[in-house]
This record gives sequence, structure tokens and C-alpha cells, in this order.
Amino acid sequence: MSAPTVQTLETITGGVATPRGFRAAGVSAGIKTKAGALDLALLVSDGPATAAAVFTINRAQAAPVLVSRDHLVRSGGVARAVIVNSGCANACTGDEGLRAANVMATATAALLGCPVEQVLVASTGVIGVALPLDKIQEGLPRAFDALGVDNGSVAAQAIMTTDPFPKEAAARVGIGGREITIGGMAKGSGMIEPMMATMLAFVTTDAGVPKAILERALRDVVDDTFNAITVDGECSTNDCVMVLANGASGVTVDENSYDAFADALRTVCLRLALGIVRGGEGATKLVTVSVTGAASAAEARQAAKAIANSPLVKTAIHGGDPNWGRLIAVAGRAGVAFELSRAQVTIGPIVLFKDGRPYDDAAPEAAAYLKNEDVSVGVDLGAGSASSTVWTCDLSAEYVRINAEYRT
Amino acid sequence: MSAPTVQTLETITGGVATPRGFRAAGVSAGIKTKAGALDLALLVSDGPATAAAVFTINRAQAAPVLVSRDHLVRSGGVARAVIVNSGCANACTGDEGLRAANVMATATAALLGCPVEQVLVASTGVIGVALPLDKIQEGLPRAFDALGVDNGSVAAQAIMTTDPFPKEAAARVGIGGREITIGGMAKGSGMIEPMMATMLAFVTTDAGVPKAILERALRDVVDDTFNAITVDGECSTNDCVMVLANGASGVTVDENSYDAFADALRTVCLRLALGIVRGGEGATKLVTVSVTGAASAAEARQAAKAIANSPLVKTAIHGGDPNWGRLIAVAGRAGVAFELSRAQVTIGPIVLFKDGRPYDDAAPEAAAYLKNEDVSVGVDLGAGSASSTVWTCDLSAEYVRINAEYRT
Repeated sequence: MSAPTVQTLETITGGVATPRGFRAAGVSAGIKTKAGALDLALLVSDGPATAAAVFTINRAQAAPVLVSRDHLVRSGGVARAVIVNSGCANACTGDEGLRAANVMATATAALLGCPVEQVLVASTGVIGVALPLDKIQEGLPRAFDALGVDNGSVAAQAIMTTDPFPKEAAARVGIGGREITIGGMAKGSGMIEPMMATMLAFVTTDAGVPKAILERALRDVVDDTFNAITVDGECSTNDCVMVLANGASGVTVDENSYDAFADALRTVCLRLALGIVRGGEGATKLVTVSVTGAASAAEARQAAKAIANSPLVKTAIHGGDPNWGRLIAVAGRAGVAFELSRAQVTIGPIVLFKDGRPYDDAAPEAAAYLKNEDVSVGVDLGAGSASSTVWTCDLSAEYVRINAEYRT
Repeated sequence: MSAPTVQTLETITGGVATPRGFRAAGVSAGIKTKAGALDLALLVSDGPATAAAVFTINRAQAAPVLVSRDHLVRSGGVARAVIVNSGCANACTGDEGLRAANVMATATAALLGCPVEQVLVASTGVIGVALPLDKIQEGLPRAFDALGVDNGSVAAQAIMTTDPFPKEAAARVGIGGREITIGGMAKGSGMIEPMMATMLAFVTTDAGVPKAILERALRDVVDDTFNAITVDGECSTNDCVMVLANGASGVTVDENSYDAFADALRTVCLRLALGIVRGGEGATKLVTVSVTGAASAAEARQAAKAIANSPLVKTAIHGGDPNWGRLIAVAGRAGVAFELSRAQVTIGPIVLFKDGRPYDDAAPEAAAYLKNEDVSVGVDLGAGSASSTVWTCDLSAEYVRINAEYRT
């Protein structure tokens, strides 16, 4: 599928400021209660970048989501900067919240000397609390002064809420004998700051990418990456994935190089997405759920999501219990075509149910396999040939403790 | 709506053997590994009873579900007995499992001298393990000998798996100057024996109820009771609710007395259903979730179930955290019509979000309210006038411990 001039895709160390022509900063603006905690990130492209984004489908959309969506329309998909705060989601905050998100964008645009609609805004943290606008206005000039090509990691830290670690990824690929770089940062479904928190991801590239191609690539890639992970089946008021392409590499992506670009974008997004799962609340394992033998791709995804969100499956994996009965039972209730007599369950490479009967002799081997940190489970629905893979984490008592005891 | 001759509905102490003409027994047959544990229950009507049932919609249906469904069709909805074992679900056991369920019915029919299709069968416990038929055949005559009108409670204990307590309920209502009694027993979503376990409920009445009316009443009632509870959103391979009406009271239910009968049936089923929730794994609170302001009844139920199954909501309630933002966020992602500006969130009687803005001053009062054992949360979607109520329990670290550590 790829054009003959494409060179090998290579994952590299780096983040949002690794592609040429991007700078980043992270500062402490005092939004988080902990003194000195990084909570304001600024990402700037030296020149106007093509921008595309996907937003939460939650009907209670936060103010920054509404503002960013509006700006993308009004700018025709061009952005110079993204301003992000953690510690306050600016969600369920009414007209006051909308005004605050607009002020964040206006103040950033003033510093950069660009039209306000070329600034995108994101927030993550507590729902229903007013954004401390004075703190953001005080911190913003400091973030602007701190912008640098080496500050991607600091920015990645500044967008964290209760994430156990920052999430960055980068990749390089040759197109037409020249190189482009893609970098990204994400924060995870901490979900506890202390309301429902947020999945945010910001991706940059020095490729030049026409708007239609960038939107198509993001849509294609998000479906296999950020939309294929789940920590607890929730979907926040603030979720978004934004990608900025500034063309600083001198390479422009076209139909011939689409696959190479999309593959590199997928690599970066998948690494960020898996980082979110690994950093899920209380998570001790990364679980790959593969569903095969489905009647359609949509049913494969539906069954895989049902398994990945099942508390019974997630607790069994947490406990290292090769509990294939739970996998069968969830597949059976997932609302998709399912033929028990042709179904199959595997844990890692080990078959535990096939031809309508258990293979319980394999249970000890499967239990030993489940001691690994990265594990996979597979269910063949016996109903067709479509498949889907999603990623999740296990469900631990620590998840409950984090979510139950946050404010007590 | 009720006929003028109906007397007041009264809840009474009792269970499946409380209505006239029913006897019950519970014995230890050695199916459970713990010596002396009750694991075989027999419920007999002295004469043929009209029977109706609803079964799991899981596509991986256990052998006893297949056999009971078949018997109800072949008998034209007439039953003399129900034989139930705990400790083994006889699910995912292939042809051998079907044969075992049939032998359970045949042996019971032989003891009673009735056609085999008048015997219903249920099992609950481990998935994927062969039923120890010899033990059931040994225990069955002892159960038959032990049948008695005072043994409803013993039967209720014999159908338990990891339920923390047996669940029984009974009610009496006058129809046409005479009294009918309804009794029932249930076992809950222990879910851990050690695969996915089962919700089973058995209800008896000494009213005479024509098949069409019994089926209609069960369908109406189940929707507001057993289908309105959720512990963890799972649905097992073995779930069923069976009702037997033997007419021993001399009273026959007709259209005039339908409402009185259905109300009494609903009372018994709701008490059993709430018992299942109270006995949910790791549960410390019974949570009533009321959704109002929905565009349709179906959307109201969908939103209520989404809230009741949300791990973020359930952990917040467990921790006594009046976290209205999580309720808003789940309502927003529930896939139903939702208007944030008209939405309202209440915890108990306390308004926490209304007219697009938080009422955070009420948070301490709401936190104090959440210390109760029975709590309610309400969300008005601001999108219509339909409503729905469902019941759930909180999510505790104990749930995870039970489900993760069962076999380790």
C-alpha cells in the first residue's frame, strides 16, 4: 500500500516539541492545591499549523471543548497554539466557564500575536469548580517565556492529574527521501480529580498535511488507538485528541504517502494510548483483548469492549485466575452473534475452551502465564470472520480505594 | 384500577412453602466441597400448577435453562416441581451437561409420579464443570423424604452460593373476600462460584392463575423488579425466575383481580430483588437510582442503568462522596437525550446541581446523608417527562478481593 519511496518507521525518544518548529512549556500556576505542582502547559507552533481534533461524545461537554470546536471551525482548521490547564476541568460551569475558556484563548493569542481562533484550549481536573482565571493569567506569560524545544517533557507533566507517570511518544519516518517526525503527549483517565477526569492527547508533526488528509488520518488512527482503550468504560466531559501539522520539515503528505504518515501517527497514538491504560487507576497489568470470529467488525468491537469493561473479567485477571467461564459468559451477553459450540477462549497462547468443552488441564499453565505484566486474552465468537483488538487494565482494590476515598 | 372486593396487601414472614399446597426441602448432597453444605433444593406443588418463567438472555445458555424452557413448552405451562442444585452451574458442559439436566428432571418425576416435562430444573455455581450426577441421584430421595411446609427457609439456604444471607419473601392479599398467598426465594449475583454465577428466583402462589395471565403478570413484574437491579452489569448463563400457581386457595385470578395479584407478585419479587442487591458482593449500601426528565421510558431506564453500573458512581457512593459531577458525566455519555442547562442532580433530598450550576454549599449535608445504609440518587435529564428507577449497590474493595482472589 505504501509508496516505494517510504523509509522505515522508527520510534524515537521525544514528545510534542520533538518535531521541528514546535516549542512547549509547563509551569506551576497554582491551580492545583499542591504548592509548586505543574498545572499549565503551552504548546506553540512557530508558524500556522493545520489542525484536526476529535472530542468527547459526552453530551455534557466542558467549556474548553465547546471553545476549541468553535475555533477549529472559525479558523478553517488552522492553529498556532494549544493552552492546557490541569487541576480544574472547567466543566458544568455555565456561562462563566465559557467566558473563562475564551479568556484563556484570548490571552494566549495576545502573547503570540495570532488570531484568537488559532488557539485551542483544553482543561482537566475537577468538574463543577470555577476556573481560577487570575492564576492562569498570571502563569501564562511565564509559560510563554519558558517555551523551548526541550520542554516537551515538562509540558507532559503539566497536563497530568493523578496519572502515575507522564506519557510521551515520538516516531520518525522517511517520505520521498526526507524525514518527518511525529510527537505526542497524553494524560490518562485518572478519573479522580475528584469528579470524572479526562483523556487528553496532543500530537504534533513537522509534516505538512492538507486539512482533509489530516482529518482522515486522525479519524482512522483514533479508532484503532484511543477509541480502542478502556480503563473503566467511562467517557468524560473533556476528552479530546488534537493534532497539529506545521510543515516545518518541508515534506507534504499526499495520497501516495498517506499510509506512511498514518502508520507513524498510529504508532505514536498507540504508544500514548497504551501508556494511558498502563497508568489506569490501580492498574497492575496491561490486558490485550482480541475478539475473532465475529459476524462483523462492529460486533467484534462491541464484544471486545464488553469483555474489556467487565468487572468480573478484570478482577479475575487481577487475581491471576484463568477464568475462561467469565469470558464466555460476557461474550454471550454482549449482544452479538455467538455460537457456543464453535466458540474458543484463549489466555495468552493457551486454549481453555474449544469445541463446546473446557480444557481444564491447561489451567495451571494459564495461571502461570497471567503472572506476566502484559497479558492477552482471546475469544473467538464462532459466528464469522471479523475481529477487533482493544486494550484495558485489570481492576484492583486500589481502583476502588482511589475512587471511593479521594475526598474522604 | 383494582376490583372493589380486593383487601389490603400485606407482607408476611414466609417463603416458597408458605402458600397452600407447596412443600419444600433442602439437603446436603456433597456437590459443594464444604462438607455438610446445603446444595440441593426441591420445591413441590401437591397438584399440577400453572407455571411461567423468564430466562437469561445470555447466548451461552446453561443446560438446565435449555431443559426447563423445553419442559414449559412441552407441558403447556404446567409444573409439579422444581429441582435446584447449587455448587455447579452445569453451564458450558456440552451434550453431557444436557443429559445430566435431563436425568435430574427424570429422577424427580419418578419420585413424584408425574410426567418429566412437569419438572423444571435450575443450577448455579461453577461454570464448565461436569455435574456430579451420582451425588444428585443420591441426595434427591432424601430431599423428597424431607419435603415439608416448614422447609422453605432450608430450601432458600440450599440454593445459595456465596450469598451472605438467604432471601425469602411472602405477601398475602384478599381477592373476592378470600385470601391468596404468594411466597418466594432467590439467590443472588454472588458471581464468584468461581466463574460467573447466577440470579435464581422461585415464586409460588396458591392462587389459580390462567397461563396467559400468569405469563403477563410475570413479564410486567420482572421488568420493575429483577430487571431493575444490577450488581455489576453482568448477566449469567443460568439466570431464571420461575413462578408456580397451584390454585390451592380456591381463588382464581381474572382480569378483575389482575392488579391485586400483580401488585402482590411485585411486592414479593421486589423484596427478593432488593435482597439480591443488599447481598451483592462486597455491598455495604443499597442505592436507589431515579432518573426523571427523560425523553422516553426506554431512555430513562438506559440512563438509570448506566448510572447504576458506573464504577465511578458506585465507588463515590461507597466512599460517601457527594460527587454530582460523576452523575452528570455518566448521564451525558449514556446515549440518551440530555440537556445540561435543564438537568438536575439530587443526592437524597439534597439538590447539588440545577440551572446549569453547582450547589456546592449543600455538599456537607449530602456527605452526611450518604452515611446511611440505604441511599438514593436522582438525575433529571432535562429532556422530557419519562422516568425509571433501578437499584444497585456500592462498589467496594471487597468486591475486587472476592472476585480476584477466589481461586488464588
